[in-house]
Amino acid sequence: MKQLTYLNDAGGVLGWDQQVTMPEGGTPARSKQSSALSAVTHERLTDDRVGEWLDALDDTDLSGGQRAVVREIRREHERAVEVPEDLVTEISETASNALPVWEEAKAEDDFDAFAPTLEKMIELKREYAAAIDPDRDPYEVLFEEYEPYLGLDTAERVLERLRDELVPLIDEIEDSDATLADPFADGEYGEAAQEETVRAALDELGYDWERGRLDTAPHPFSTGTQFDARVTTRFDPQDPMGAIGSTIHEFGHATYTQGLPREQYGTPLGQSRDLTVHESQSRLWENHVGRSRPFWDRFADTVDEHLGTDASAREFYEAANQIYPDNLIRVEADELTYHMHIILRFEIERDLIAGDLDVEEVPGVWNDKMEEYLGVRPETDSEGCLQDIHWTHGSLGYFPTYSLGSVLAAQLYASAEEAIDDLDGKIRSGEFDPLHEWLTENVHRHGCRYETDDLVAEATGESFTADYFLDYAHGKFGDLYDL
Amino acid sequence: MKQLTYLNDAGGVLGWDQQVTMPEGGTPARSKQSSALSAVTHERLTDDRVGEWLDALDDTDLSGGQRAVVREIRREHERAVEVPEDLVTEISETASNALPVWEEAKAEDDFDAFAPTLEKMIELKREYAAAIDPDRDPYEVLFEEYEPYLGLDTAERVLERLRDELVPLIDEIEDSDATLADPFADGEYGEAAQEETVRAALDELGYDWERGRLDTAPHPFSTGTQFDARVTTRFDPQDPMGAIGSTIHEFGHATYTQGLPREQYGTPLGQSRDLTVHESQSRLWENHVGRSRPFWDRFADTVDEHLGTDASAREFYEAANQIYPDNLIRVEADELTYHMHIILRFEIERDLIAGDLDVEEVPGVWNDKMEEYLGVRPETDSEGCLQDIHWTHGSLGYFPTYSLGSVLAAQLYASAEEAIDDLDGKIRSGEFDPLHEWLTENVHRHGCRYETDDLVAEATGESFTADYFLDYAHGKFGDLYDL
Repeated sequence: MKQLTYLNDAGGVLGWDQQVTMPEGGTPARSKQSSALSAVTHERLTDDRVGEWLDALDDTDLSGGQRAVVREIRREHERAVEVPEDLVTEISETASNALPVWEEAKAEDDFDAFAPTLEKMIELKREYAAAIDPDRDPYEVLFEEYEPYLGLDTAERVLERLRDELVPLIDEIEDSDATLADPFADGEYGEAAQEETVRAALDELGYDWERGRLDTAPHPFSTGTQFDARVTTRFDPQDPMGAIGSTIHEFGHATYTQGLPREQYGTPLGQSRDLTVHESQSRLWENHVGRSRPFWDRFADTVDEHLGTDASAREFYEAANQIYPDNLIRVEADELTYHMHIILRFEIERDLIAGDLDVEEVPGVWNDKMEEYLGVRPETDSEGCLQDIHWTHGSLGYFPTYSLGSVLAAQLYASAEEAIDDLDGKIRSGEFDPLHEWLTENVHRHGCRYETDDLVAEATGESFTADYFLDYAHGKFGDLYDL
Repeated sequence: MKQLTYLNDAGGVLGWDQQVTMPEGGTPARSKQSSALSAVTHERLTDDRVGEWLDALDDTDLSGGQRAVVREIRREHERAVEVPEDLVTEISETASNALPVWEEAKAEDDFDAFAPTLEKMIELKREYAAAIDPDRDPYEVLFEEYEPYLGLDTAERVLERLRDELVPLIDEIEDSDATLADPFADGEYGEAAQEETVRAALDELGYDWERGRLDTAPHPFSTGTQFDARVTTRFDPQDPMGAIGSTIHEFGHATYTQGLPREQYGTPLGQSRDLTVHESQSRLWENHVGRSRPFWDRFADTVDEHLGTDASAREFYEAANQIYPDNLIRVEADELTYHMHIILRFEIERDLIAGDLDVEEVPGVWNDKMEEYLGVRPETDSEGCLQDIHWTHGSLGYFPTYSLGSVLAAQLYASAEEAIDDLDGKIRSGEFDPLHEWLTENVHRHGCRYETDDLVAEATGESFTADYFLDYAHGKFGDLYDL
């Protein structure tokens, strides 16, 4: 089973290389290499002997850690064996073929060209869910691929609450007369200067360069193991704040990975918990640190120095916290409206899987919901329902974990603030070790030892809740926008 | 069997990453990932069914290409099944553990610290050879790992001839009064300028950047597939000619790989022939093109421009062809004395494997041979028998292919000159396509279709011979050194 992890991680290296260093011509060979690796890992994971080993372990006396290992491997094994190999292959091939179709449809603003592919993918994912458990809501089964333990009902409850409380908050902000500073508004910032800036941010936050590196990628991501957890970013000449935020976001992912116990490498105890927890770590650093006043008290001079601006900590802090509801694009959204982008995707994909919505209705429903939640209507599908790659990949049920992660970030950060004396002051003076230590102690070192809800309870003393996120949002933006 | 190639190539990506981009801390995880991949490929290659499939094919009517595929897979399979898995693991672990021991012994100039490790490796490689064929000279069996078809007797004959003819030629050069120009002698050359220069060389020679890239690595190498064949180099501030030569050398390897038929990717027909042929391609470009007068007629101005020199084509040509017999280090050796470095290693490792030489005698024998062949005696073992990594890896029998490759390069280049009208003139005017086409037509496109000797005969109309190399060496250096 350790070999399986090693082979999966080898696949991760191939993926990083493909996105960061591989020349364009390499695609055909890389696809074959990655598929061969996936075939090998799938074959091992579904081997009958794995089931026999797991059954044999049922009768033995196991420690808590050992029970967790068995639980996680059993879960992976059982899901994998239920899905016919042909279906796995068909989904993977449909996704491969869908990519250029989606890319062209997006470039040409032609949803009709993409619709049959989306239709097919939805059908295949329904089959996939039915293979795993024909008696349950298929969307619930799909969601559990990305967040196995929090439950779709929790996700639904939280998302509805975000919608109900954030829509009025965003409205208030729109009606507010406050104007936030934007020191980058009129400049152009070269790639070299931006790279120095984000490297300085990583230095400041305590990124372990011995076990990581920074590169650029068209779609920033983080990948790796506790021995080598890498970060990517991208640079837009008009938007250095975007690069800073996205780098700190990926740093949050990487620092979680770096904090996993090295001696457990290869077992679930040395692996990160699922997407909600991973996203909580990226959002905690991006939002609760990187968009905080104490961080900018610390970091403003460094930015002025590298980017030639002459702005105060307060001005950068305001720039990092601009709310702009007229933005149509999820990955460019601010901290509040971001959740509206998630909620509309969640509602649409849930209805698509349930058969309550036809593919051809997607563009209309998308635009209606954008108007309802954010008061803005996309003029094209490229800026609307064609903008994200997730459905092309077959990742239906993935989007909710983005919001759940943000919500969890706030809950964890509140506990860290409780536990660490004067955390703001420490950040202001560049002392990030106490926060790293708290996160490692309460989240990272556990790997997959606890189910998500138990991990949250162990770390914060409470069940998963949106209270902290909403308090934080009302507090910060109420203050910034004089509400 | 195609999957096996894909998985091996995935391992190649992991290796490239480890040498070029991986942060230092990544080693423990990478070792496990690479070992897991090797275990999977070994398991597949030695699967009983492979033998059954091959036997079943014996009775069928196969095309020439199909027969070659069967021949190559059979050879790999049969060698692999003969070697006990435990021995494979022990060699691989011994090599892993040997690496830091060798590194420290080299740094400390302490051969005694390395001797027990070398002793053990030699014993294991003897066992390895005996497992494959207990009735043959074990060194012959080991040599065939790297060059399966030319035969050790050919290698021996060629190496002896090189020694017998090159030692007197080198002596004559040492006695000559001629002084060759060295426009780089007193300068320091920055990395950026050197990189521009070698990139210009790759542009000039026709490297396909869509299917390749250039990076730096401590020990330059080339790796990849016909879809993605990468080059690495390194820069020494005092020695831009070294970077140019080593880049062109690796380009030669990569251009062979890029020339393999893409539609055959995954089968032996889409794979490169063994090390002699690979090295012939790197040496052909490095020596017969990169160290030729026509190339410098073409490239001198570019170098002057990027490196700020003001030298003529003749001066660069002379600089590229300096013979310096007092050099102790193989990888820094010139085109002639290089072979003496190979011959002494060949003679030593052959005697070590045969049991005619004890490990403790290696430093003395090494130094005696250096004195005999090149008239210079290392003062330390770091600059003597500890300089190369090959024995640490367990690569005994590998060294001869370096010289065989150089010899074959001359033979192939002579045929290309015969076939291409005014090849010198074409190079002088930057037309490298005809040479690429000749090499692709006669070498690259065949993959492993022919055994090495048949490939040589098909391409040149003759058996493998050192005649062309010796003619070339006598001609070029006789002229340069007024002999």
